[in-house]
Amino acid sequence: MTTFQLGIDLGGTNTTLGFVTRQGRVVACDHFSTEASKGPRDWSGRACRKALEMMDLAGIKPGAVQGAGIGAAGLIDQETGRILQSPNFKGWVRVPAARLLARKLRIPVAIDNDVNAMALGEALFGGGRGLTDVFCIALGTGVGGGLFLKGEIYRGTTYSAGEIGHVTIDPDGPFCACGNQGCLEAFVGTAGILRTADAWIERNPRSKMARFASKHRLTVKDVADLAKSGCSSARDVLKHTGMMLGIGLAGVVNLLNPSAIIVGGRVAQAGRFLFRPLRETLKRRAMSVPRRAVQVRPAQLGPRAGMIGASMLPLGYARIFR
Amino acid sequence: MTTFQLGIDLGGTNTTLGFVTRQGRVVACDHFSTEASKGPRDWSGRACRKALEMMDLAGIKPGAVQGAGIGAAGLIDQETGRILQSPNFKGWVRVPAARLLARKLRIPVAIDNDVNAMALGEALFGGGRGLTDVFCIALGTGVGGGLFLKGEIYRGTTYSAGEIGHVTIDPDGPFCACGNQGCLEAFVGTAGILRTADAWIERNPRSKMARFASKHRLTVKDVADLAKSGCSSARDVLKHTGMMLGIGLAGVVNLLNPSAIIVGGRVAQAGRFLFRPLRETLKRRAMSVPRRAVQVRPAQLGPRAGMIGASMLPLGYARIFR
Repeated sequence: MTTFQLGIDLGGTNTTLGFVTRQGRVVACDHFSTEASKGPRDWSGRACRKALEMMDLAGIKPGAVQGAGIGAAGLIDQETGRILQSPNFKGWVRVPAARLLARKLRIPVAIDNDVNAMALGEALFGGGRGLTDVFCIALGTGVGGGLFLKGEIYRGTTYSAGEIGHVTIDPDGPFCACGNQGCLEAFVGTAGILRTADAWIERNPRSKMARFASKHRLTVKDVADLAKSGCSSARDVLKHTGMMLGIGLAGVVNLLNPSAIIVGGRVAQAGRFLFRPLRETLKRRAMSVPRRAVQVRPAQLGPRAGMIGASMLPLGYARIFR
Repeated sequence: MTTFQLGIDLGGTNTTLGFVTRQGRVVACDHFSTEASKGPRDWSGRACRKALEMMDLAGIKPGAVQGAGIGAAGLIDQETGRILQSPNFKGWVRVPAARLLARKLRIPVAIDNDVNAMALGEALFGGGRGLTDVFCIALGTGVGGGLFLKGEIYRGTTYSAGEIGHVTIDPDGPFCACGNQGCLEAFVGTAGILRTADAWIERNPRSKMARFASKHRLTVKDVADLAKSGCSSARDVLKHTGMMLGIGLAGVVNLLNPSAIIVGGRVAQAGRFLFRPLRETLKRRAMSVPRRAVQVRPAQLGPRAGMIGASMLPLGYARIFR
């Protein structure tokens, strides 16, 4: 009998559920509104009902689902399965989300933060498939990292490892939302990229990007699209972004000597305009032995990476709650 | 019967040998000249004779020595026990040092690089005693790091993890011996500290440090001594050094969330003049959760750390050769 894992990506807006085979194939995927849930207990009820509905539609028998995993933004205590801190769910602090869901679903449940779940998904089935030492970086409003070392998720002593977004890469750089100065996130997070774009627009007010920005509120996707359509200002913005990303990732290469670095998040879709300066910076700033050993790749699982990775958590990658 | 481990610190100038109990107590310690050895085979003969001589003197019976470990500067291949690259031993490239010694000593032998051996020693018996996630930094001419994660040495995919000395901390900073710009080593390695001192001397030509430097060739130890004796210029140099060290280590705190950071090497003896600005920088630049979890401590085992750590390698911390 084919068995399935249930993966749950608990996001601030939506909760995505998926049934996944042990080989990483998604056989059913759906979502419901996290925001509409009245607190954690109501949320776990909705998750359970949605899972049963999906199983019914896909013809998955209850006995075929062996475990579930949750990926949630925030600081997750592995010992207790509780969400300790979260940017999205104010009323959820110290909620034992894993136990809550295990009681409803009557299957083993594991939990981890969203970036670790994404890193696990990409390490097992995406850009890091078959490799044992993978660093995964997620670029978005925030910039986070997940460490998959020696075939396991590395969480650090208080479960907060991977915060590459707040590693200083220029001591005198712009201030970051965290209060520190010159964090990687201040350069390659959404706000950082748009700040770089503003500076370029001021310098080249007649560029395609400047003309676009005079009519629309510029987004990172616009910058990537403009770069693809040939706008040299937009390409310069991505070049600068890739270079700063390279400075941060060269540090990871030197420090961890990983076999792969997986770059995820929407910005990664800018493709070669981002990856070329990134790789050039690695050549300049990472030591030759670890640089030759590392493959730098875009993430392959897209927005489902977190859900897929979460589904694998109970298979020896995180503590199990019943 | 008390059993012993033999630790061998293979340095460019001297080879230090020690017999160590499983509890980390050194019962005998001696050394011989590495430079006088005529190649690896001669060296292993000397090491064997010195070990037998020490055992004789200390009354250690052959059956009581359970294994030996070598700590050597350079890139060590764990699969083969070979020294792949080494700054000190030009004729030693690809030498199967562990096997060579195992055949002579007729006990299991393990090998790792010197900084990993030091990190293991400090993690088990020094500043990181009892902790499972320890980052160890060695400050000297070069600046290296050793990672002890989840109770094991973390070496990366090609055994070169830990190269914190070549992590960029200021993209426009001074050039480093490695060719990159603004490496941590370019600020806190011996040459970097003396460059900072030179700048201060130029700015304050009447300071105690400037007067000292006009008569002697300034060393890092002199800077530390001058700081202790009240020279404010020397204190400023160490303050700047501690601050730059703090930028690099804040990155480690954010990325790895370790329980301890152990600072070793001679410069660490500058004490509070170095550690105060280091801790202040961590407060400013590391995130609150991992910063509160980390203890920053000077190394405790001194120059014997590498030998002591090496002696423990065969006890499950490295591959064993017979």
